[in-house]
Amino acid sequence: METIRQSFQVNFNYDVHFLTGLFNPENRLLASVIAGDDQSVMKKAIVIIDDGVLAEHKDLLNKLEVYALQYKDVFDILGEPIILKGGENVKNDHTLYQKLHERINAQRICRHSYIIAIGGGALLDVVGLAAATAHRGIRLIRIPSTVLSQNDSGVGVKNGFNVFGKKNFVGTFAPPYAVLNDFDFLTTLDDRDWRSGIAEAVKVALIKDRGFFEYINNNTSNLKSRNMEVMKQVIYRCATLHLNHIRTSGDPFEHGSCRPLDFGHWAAHKIEQLSDYSIRHGEAVAIGIAIDTTYSYLAGLLKDDEWELVLETLGCLGFNLTMPQLSQWRDDNEYVKTLLLGMEEFREHQGGKLTLMMLKEVGQGININEVDESLFHKAILLINEFELKKVKEI
Amino acid sequence: METIRQSFQVNFNYDVHFLTGLFNPENRLLASVIAGDDQSVMKKAIVIIDDGVLAEHKDLLNKLEVYALQYKDVFDILGEPIILKGGENVKNDHTLYQKLHERINAQRICRHSYIIAIGGGALLDVVGLAAATAHRGIRLIRIPSTVLSQNDSGVGVKNGFNVFGKKNFVGTFAPPYAVLNDFDFLTTLDDRDWRSGIAEAVKVALIKDRGFFEYINNNTSNLKSRNMEVMKQVIYRCATLHLNHIRTSGDPFEHGSCRPLDFGHWAAHKIEQLSDYSIRHGEAVAIGIAIDTTYSYLAGLLKDDEWELVLETLGCLGFNLTMPQLSQWRDDNEYVKTLLLGMEEFREHQGGKLTLMMLKEVGQGININEVDESLFHKAILLINEFELKKVKEI
Repeated sequence: METIRQSFQVNFNYDVHFLTGLFNPENRLLASVIAGDDQSVMKKAIVIIDDGVLAEHKDLLNKLEVYALQYKDVFDILGEPIILKGGENVKNDHTLYQKLHERINAQRICRHSYIIAIGGGALLDVVGLAAATAHRGIRLIRIPSTVLSQNDSGVGVKNGFNVFGKKNFVGTFAPPYAVLNDFDFLTTLDDRDWRSGIAEAVKVALIKDRGFFEYINNNTSNLKSRNMEVMKQVIYRCATLHLNHIRTSGDPFEHGSCRPLDFGHWAAHKIEQLSDYSIRHGEAVAIGIAIDTTYSYLAGLLKDDEWELVLETLGCLGFNLTMPQLSQWRDDNEYVKTLLLGMEEFREHQGGKLTLMMLKEVGQGININEVDESLFHKAILLINEFELKKVKEI
Repeated sequence: METIRQSFQVNFNYDVHFLTGLFNPENRLLASVIAGDDQSVMKKAIVIIDDGVLAEHKDLLNKLEVYALQYKDVFDILGEPIILKGGENVKNDHTLYQKLHERINAQRICRHSYIIAIGGGALLDVVGLAAATAHRGIRLIRIPSTVLSQNDSGVGVKNGFNVFGKKNFVGTFAPPYAVLNDFDFLTTLDDRDWRSGIAEAVKVALIKDRGFFEYINNNTSNLKSRNMEVMKQVIYRCATLHLNHIRTSGDPFEHGSCRPLDFGHWAAHKIEQLSDYSIRHGEAVAIGIAIDTTYSYLAGLLKDDEWELVLETLGCLGFNLTMPQLSQWRDDNEYVKTLLLGMEEFREHQGGKLTLMMLKEVGQGININEVDESLFHKAILLINEFELKKVKEI
């Protein structure tokens, strides 16, 4: 009997909005997103909020209530909002996933109902997985509250949580229904969270867009002094590059091996773990970028002035490019093993063959399939020297 | 700032093979499927087997070992095969999902490795979910061992398990890497499992292909006497219609509301539950088909001779069209409530609006969005009468 060759395409569409005042009653955006394609049906929603957001925006619950009242003919929020602890640790607590399913079940919401998640990237990841797997996918409206989630994870197509000490061991590819980036949330971020997300912008600029890197480099002091107009530009351009990559890569769900957006990330994931998650994801990405940029330089892929430019820019943004465990780097250090294990885990997560993105020049990445471990050792030593010199200069 | 409209397509491709002697050492098919797109890399696989299959095919483990040895330059089976209890109850035990992830982690298999699952639809569903969520998707090779899984669930794009007493409450859309339908597995099925899967063929024939329905109707005694050549045809044509639907529906991941392949299924899911899963899925689908066909007739959508033809064909295949709980049907019966709850759960699973497929004529379905509950009561009474008459005639 003849083999049946099954072949089909699935279309995914979602809008990413940039605004302020999302919950102002006169702002129809959220209501019209929820009304969606079929305005004849009253919509239902469950709201999930990061407790960190709530701590800084104490009027948020009240604003939500007023907003829902204003658009009560469009949608209904079922039950009290669920408040979850934000931050990477939310991804290690698997009972949350089950709790979210319990609520979805208890409120009897359907596939065409909405889960509205307000918070940082970690919270969006966990809620995203719960939403993607209940009824094989409930519509998820992401309202990212941090720089990192607004310019990177919150606009992408992934979710996940950590199991077996491995970041995102469990997860799915599941595009959101919509993303609403409200810049007002950024005003209350602490300096670390404000800065942290810029690392992903530096990353995508380095591998794809020299002009954008120059913009960041020219605005390091504006970013440090929390100039919101500059930050809006950084977020918008970073999100655009991220979304373009997903759209044009030909492999949005990563069936192949190549993952250029993960520049600097094999080390970053492990650095977070080494720090017991006291180092934020973006901060770890900055260190990861420094490591891979320095490797690129030592491997003869990248010129020395460009290498210096990258490390200097990261430094001017306020990033530390090393951490206690790495600043005491020695070949027989146990952290060596742990960090390099990150590469093995990356390979495992990615598929059989290791494909790492490195830098050819600022604004242009290059894939490599073989690595020289000794160069990574040297890279870390060189970064330590670079950081030490900086301290001495101050 | 301008809204970014994200829009992309994801391509999914997989082959469905029909054969006998899959594990004969000289049959290269499985090895060449595993070798896949990149033959330079040694592949890894984990094997998961339904204990029901193993009970009937005691040499399977040995055959697998010999096969793996024969193609040891292509792939390596890591660890002992995992033996799971098959049948619908496997979908109620959530620890299995975690156990599968533990094995995937312990064997350090990557996204480009394989999970080979041999068993019935329920086992394939649970393994499918574990495979789809580990590393955001490991390649799954389905080797369905029953009529039902070879012609229906095993060739489709869904997985899931049951939570909160709701069938498939948790699941994803995740096409397999390949499907290998080995007819040899069917020889050892008991009569109930042999017959059960034919219900899905009747279903898809009724809504899409009159000629196929006539073929089944002409071959009821061949099917009852377990004529394998006829069964092969039934499976091939049913799988083809199922795959065509997924490919051409324009909505393979069911973002919309319409689910024509679920004809007869709103009731079936609930009937399985009412019977405490003593009634097989296909047997429940047969009852569900009888209910919706009778509803179609009572609602004036379907002519009476066609109604009778459908019920008679199901009867000739050996299906019971009622069950103890339904044969004592009364309006105040608690089962009424439970069964009709199935429709509400179906609506909930499907999305806000109820869309039910009914019959216009044999070979052509028709969607309805409103139902008259009283007609379902009448339909069940009429089926009971029909069944009683059959008993008297015997």
